[in-house]
Amino acid sequence: MLIFTCALMKTINAEIICTGSELLSGKLNLYVPLFHERLEPLGARIVREQSCGDGLDEIADCLAGALRRSHLVIACGGLGPTFDDLTRQAAAKVLGRRLVYSAEWERELRAAYGLSGRLPRNFSDQCLALEGARLLHNANGTACGQVLTRGGRMLALLPGPRREWEPMFASGLEPEIKEFFRGAVPAARVKLRTAGLREPEAEALARPVMRRFPSLCFTILAGPGTADFIISGDDRRGLVRRAAAACRKAFGRSLYGEGDSTLASAVGDALRRAGSTLAGAESCTGGLVSQQLTEAAGSSDYFNGCAVTYSNAAKSSLLGVRKATLARHGAVSAECAAEMARGARRVYAADYAYSVTGVAGPGGGTPDKPVGTVWFGVAGPRGVRTMSRKFRGERANVRASAAAFVLDELRKAVK
Amino acid sequence: MLIFTCALMKTINAEIICTGSELLSGKLNLYVPLFHERLEPLGARIVREQSCGDGLDEIADCLAGALRRSHLVIACGGLGPTFDDLTRQAAAKVLGRRLVYSAEWERELRAAYGLSGRLPRNFSDQCLALEGARLLHNANGTACGQVLTRGGRMLALLPGPRREWEPMFASGLEPEIKEFFRGAVPAARVKLRTAGLREPEAEALARPVMRRFPSLCFTILAGPGTADFIISGDDRRGLVRRAAAACRKAFGRSLYGEGDSTLASAVGDALRRAGSTLAGAESCTGGLVSQQLTEAAGSSDYFNGCAVTYSNAAKSSLLGVRKATLARHGAVSAECAAEMARGARRVYAADYAYSVTGVAGPGGGTPDKPVGTVWFGVAGPRGVRTMSRKFRGERANVRASAAAFVLDELRKAVK
Repeated sequence: MLIFTCALMKTINAEIICTGSELLSGKLNLYVPLFHERLEPLGARIVREQSCGDGLDEIADCLAGALRRSHLVIACGGLGPTFDDLTRQAAAKVLGRRLVYSAEWERELRAAYGLSGRLPRNFSDQCLALEGARLLHNANGTACGQVLTRGGRMLALLPGPRREWEPMFASGLEPEIKEFFRGAVPAARVKLRTAGLREPEAEALARPVMRRFPSLCFTILAGPGTADFIISGDDRRGLVRRAAAACRKAFGRSLYGEGDSTLASAVGDALRRAGSTLAGAESCTGGLVSQQLTEAAGSSDYFNGCAVTYSNAAKSSLLGVRKATLARHGAVSAECAAEMARGARRVYAADYAYSVTGVAGPGGGTPDKPVGTVWFGVAGPRGVRTMSRKFRGERANVRASAAAFVLDELRKAVK
Repeated sequence: MLIFTCALMKTINAEIICTGSELLSGKLNLYVPLFHERLEPLGARIVREQSCGDGLDEIADCLAGALRRSHLVIACGGLGPTFDDLTRQAAAKVLGRRLVYSAEWERELRAAYGLSGRLPRNFSDQCLALEGARLLHNANGTACGQVLTRGGRMLALLPGPRREWEPMFASGLEPEIKEFFRGAVPAARVKLRTAGLREPEAEALARPVMRRFPSLCFTILAGPGTADFIISGDDRRGLVRRAAAACRKAFGRSLYGEGDSTLASAVGDALRRAGSTLAGAESCTGGLVSQQLTEAAGSSDYFNGCAVTYSNAAKSSLLGVRKATLARHGAVSAECAAEMARGARRVYAADYAYSVTGVAGPGGGTPDKPVGTVWFGVAGPRGVRTMSRKFRGERANVRASAAAFVLDELRKAVK
């Protein structure tokens, strides 16, 4: 193991090791984005992630490689009481340390679970700690976390379940990292969220800024109808702040929010500012927009509801869309979208209302209105406006793109 | 590199390498579950996954380790035309092979993009292939895939975007894997989907089966309100089929479907069989159930729509919930849930209707009705039934659990 002088280190190279065969057989790995969010403000950058099965040798091999390469190694999972929880043993093997019984952790477990007398086996197994490790308290489980430092490097073992490792990271590991890697420069990070720009368009707008700030890291994460633009790096000379200001100007009206805000929360903020209420009418999106609008706590303050009208009969009976309109123009038309939005505004007694009606596919397309064709309406105090778009991709993408589009229009319409 | 006799090999050990710093800075890694689905039927088991940045040495280090350990190595990403697309170069370095210009790929590019004369640089860079590699056709992009075999091992380089690598895998790589690893025994896989069981309950029901079939692999993937139970392994003696039959019996009515079916598609199947239609009324779920029901193509055959009534006024005006009911029992009550379901059934002229009304949190809880309390109604030809549950966790979990619960009830109610 090499020795680093931490005071000279500007960035901590971190690696994540995720153990558990479920991560290799169908389960999504959510660890990396979550650790990234927590590590970046501490000046640590994830340089590699490895997922492996539950075997002792596999885990040991991952640990050995990571400890050779990086300053901070976090292993998640494999600390439970069953036979296939072998992360402790793997770490002991790689580091050449013994596992010792921790009376401290036994006391914690006895207190937390009201245990007296002989400790059951599944509890006593949990009391094995790496020699020389400091324990990290687990408020939501029986496995204690462990952190060990040697020669400028830090190894942390955390339990797999999010409700266990997340509080443990905040209260136990984060202070350890801050203390041990004192010289690290926390990276600043600004996440600018745009709508209505494709990935290459967002990149083209930002390119002059990227050229002006070559020491910063720029990342684009594109989704249906949206693109997030992330700027990160050493901000001691205000570089990140200046680059963010330049990007904000470049994105203009396409920038709908920053950080954790979503298109739906941007609409909510606009409605709150205006003291207005909103309702919706959805056909092809089937409630997707409404669902996104109500994800935010407190959305009942401004959202009255939404009529999902999948059938033509429901469009007429609930929203008052005229049968003649449906017969003459069809459900996927400017006329129908306008009547849906007006109807939703009326029946929900809201200040604003949106409507979405289209062909999400895969069936239902015609030469006139191919799959992906969607009409939108936005009704407000000054009348109703309709728009249409043709989205590419499969059903889920058409629906997600349509939802993003109408939320973006609402955000701009609410005054 | 070791030499393996493929004919003797029963399982192919596969590794996935994902390159791109975005995977280490916030973007979810979707590769592993997708590759798992495709590799398992070919008899290949993913034993490790590594994600690394865009640097040549990092990619080379990942490739070298994987090629030392495993039979099949798939590297995804880094084949584009920009300066940070270095996977080809890294593979050349690790394997000690040259990169050679592929006239074959140049012809394909010229034909696909109608290019004549001098090839632009970003196209000609794409024509570099590992010496001895076979090219994999890319129907949706300019980067060709490459596959190289040596000493019983196979290395495949695929482009990162899903719409490029997915068709390439099916038409190009899959036949290569089948041909090269002829001796591999395809694993059979059965995915049983249950609702209403917690993870430990599902495990307890299946434990006797797991003991009877020690050579098979069992995995549980739990989500809000659901648990998937996956059985996989060598099926030459019908083991997987027999274990699946035993598990089906053990799970009983909790089993709602298999494979790709979802709770919403199970409800749709039941409605189709019964020739019945459905409508909904949602408060705290805000359209989440409706959105899930309409994810399936063709859901307009049986789903009429849903009234999202977030405000009490909307509950009364759209669904006819009596003001006296709201005043006496509140919106989160059996009485309100019953009137919502009846109202939705009536206004949407449907055979069945569901309702959801509860406290999703984080605000709005009372000692009587704490956060997580949700009332449900299911109305059908034989009247309306109400139920309540208290879900744990934060807002998103309460909403997702409530959606799963009411879909499970609908599935059982529709006859």
